[in-house]
Amino acid sequence: MENFTFCSPTEFIFGRDTQKEVGKALKRYGAEKVMIVYGSGRIRENGLLDEIEDSLRAEKIEFCEFGGIAPNPTAESVYAGIAKAVEEGVNFLLAVGGGSPIDAAKGIALGAVTSEDFWNFYDGKAKPFAALPVGVVLTIPAAGSEGSGNSVITNEKTHQKISVRYPDLLRPRFSIMNPELTYSLPWFQTACGIVDMMAHIYERYFSNTPETQLVDAYSEAILRDVMDQALTLKLDGENYAARADVMWAGMLAHNGLCGVGKVEDWSSHRLEHEISAFYDVAHGAGLAVMIPAWMTFCARRNPDKLWRFAINVMSVDPSGKDTEEIIDEGISELKNFYHDLGLTTNLRELVGKEPDIDLMVKSLNRNMGDTLGTYVPLSMEDCKEIYRLALEG
Amino acid sequence: MENFTFCSPTEFIFGRDTQKEVGKALKRYGAEKVMIVYGSGRIRENGLLDEIEDSLRAEKIEFCEFGGIAPNPTAESVYAGIAKAVEEGVNFLLAVGGGSPIDAAKGIALGAVTSEDFWNFYDGKAKPFAALPVGVVLTIPAAGSEGSGNSVITNEKTHQKISVRYPDLLRPRFSIMNPELTYSLPWFQTACGIVDMMAHIYERYFSNTPETQLVDAYSEAILRDVMDQALTLKLDGENYAARADVMWAGMLAHNGLCGVGKVEDWSSHRLEHEISAFYDVAHGAGLAVMIPAWMTFCARRNPDKLWRFAINVMSVDPSGKDTEEIIDEGISELKNFYHDLGLTTNLRELVGKEPDIDLMVKSLNRNMGDTLGTYVPLSMEDCKEIYRLALEG
Repeated sequence: MENFTFCSPTEFIFGRDTQKEVGKALKRYGAEKVMIVYGSGRIRENGLLDEIEDSLRAEKIEFCEFGGIAPNPTAESVYAGIAKAVEEGVNFLLAVGGGSPIDAAKGIALGAVTSEDFWNFYDGKAKPFAALPVGVVLTIPAAGSEGSGNSVITNEKTHQKISVRYPDLLRPRFSIMNPELTYSLPWFQTACGIVDMMAHIYERYFSNTPETQLVDAYSEAILRDVMDQALTLKLDGENYAARADVMWAGMLAHNGLCGVGKVEDWSSHRLEHEISAFYDVAHGAGLAVMIPAWMTFCARRNPDKLWRFAINVMSVDPSGKDTEEIIDEGISELKNFYHDLGLTTNLRELVGKEPDIDLMVKSLNRNMGDTLGTYVPLSMEDCKEIYRLALEG
Repeated sequence: MENFTFCSPTEFIFGRDTQKEVGKALKRYGAEKVMIVYGSGRIRENGLLDEIEDSLRAEKIEFCEFGGIAPNPTAESVYAGIAKAVEEGVNFLLAVGGGSPIDAAKGIALGAVTSEDFWNFYDGKAKPFAALPVGVVLTIPAAGSEGSGNSVITNEKTHQKISVRYPDLLRPRFSIMNPELTYSLPWFQTACGIVDMMAHIYERYFSNTPETQLVDAYSEAILRDVMDQALTLKLDGENYAARADVMWAGMLAHNGLCGVGKVEDWSSHRLEHEISAFYDVAHGAGLAVMIPAWMTFCARRNPDKLWRFAINVMSVDPSGKDTEEIIDEGISELKNFYHDLGLTTNLRELVGKEPDIDLMVKSLNRNMGDTLGTYVPLSMEDCKEIYRLALEG
């Protein structure tokens, strides 16, 4: 195990009707004027925005709205949000929704307190020193942004989708997590969220750091439970216990607890980011394609953790099988799980046409340099090979 | 699952040589004058205190020392610490050691900022509104106080050992956790620590709250790993990986993560507190006696979770056995584990004489009222019965 620092100071306010406490939480954290950052008009139609605004009014907190954040939030929307936050003079951002409005709010939080172009904080040209505080009302468990110091923004002009991690600045002050708010999520979005949160654990689980037994053990426990609950939710989207476990797991998967003391990988995420940057597919759907392709590529090159994964997470019975068979069965079971969720594991099917692998690898190279990941360090040729494997998924 | 709020803001600085960062950590959290609270002279002899003081000097932080905190720290030592903290005008407390100095520091933290008698915050006569900030350098993983908002103090005059939970005030700002600092722990103390941290999970695991599958799954994963590592440490006390897992598990067991959304129990701890209040035995050694006795009492009255525990934690093979057999085997395996650690499960053997059960139950009644716990709510007659079962352990 490597040395590490772990600090997850976010206050998680979890359970039924907790969205009604948002005004009190904002007050406690010093909010005076709030910009509510959200996505579609769905939260207005279903009454959530009204509930939130009533709660703010009850605490005499001023607010303005900044809606319309699309999935894979763009630099353009962040620029617009920064302009509005500055113009309105807000001292707090409240993101309502899933990873997209939360990540956009984090981008706005970084950009609204400086004259620096916020994108410089994403593409590595500058380091941020301050940010507006962010609070969250979570409605889509997936990205784990409600407990993380991360933000992913897509720059459409430059075809870059870049993830940053500034835990001291970007961890939300509080996150309100009511599983009931996820009852109405369409199945596709639920499924994509489940793939995404599991991937956040994989990116940490598949590591060459030795002697990480405890972290691996609780990571596996979370993964197995999420798979169980996914199958329950497929039949019953209003199962509170299953929605609650998935919501809590999504936070645990990405607040850093599953990565303590480990060198992380993140290849699958980066391979996927190029797909969603060029083809605008849902991030989770992209991961369902790239993760098995990545595992297949790694299977013969670094089998150890894939073997453990097959047995401890995918419940492959190892008796009478050699390592290769066990791993192949594990990957195959994972694909079956994704298929059970209704997702494809084939890249061509995902993007609906022949994907331009050379273009994606060129972009990957520009964004990430010449190698990717750590579990099996990938050259750009390797990345091409993994995209090609994904055509056979 | 019940609604909950979870906030664990402590910064955990984990790994080799991290004690050298204590000055920087204190600086970051605003320490100007620090009182170092510790137990025996061992940390002076082994050079740890020197290392810490060098680190403070390097950051130009003033400090004074308050040593001599004994196991089961007393109200008397807290009063003395408060007097010294006030006299010296310190603005930060640094606890170095295990649960005893940390819990004492927390008592001092509450008492040093008010004219109220600090004991009133423990026996329920008053509520605290402020506390000095506390930092930790952990040398004994057991109590979990390095990540919790709890403190347990023994009042020798009144024969009371009382645990309080004030998370907003008492969670340490930071905790430095170097597993190497635990290499030299005597086996008995290592064993008692392992029993204690596992008990912190049991007190949350044994709950009647329905639909807590995820929390139970990761709690079980932590318990199984700690048992594995305990057996490694028995053979090799300088095994870094095992020391690291045990240290991290001790924190996770008590920072609240394993109790989210659950009604907790805490009967075994309270039954044990009376033993260590009257007979001054090590807390972990007392728990090794009381937990199996408590489980035996609950086995027929509320078998569900004990059945799950036997299979998922104690790895009892359920095939061909009925519920009672499975549970009895689980309890028996837990006793075997405690015996493997070199601990007794017999109350008479623990205290070295015929224990005065009536006296302990009278005191329990005074401290806790007429009923105890939630998994099986215990009358004072039930508590007597459990102490009696512990005579047969």
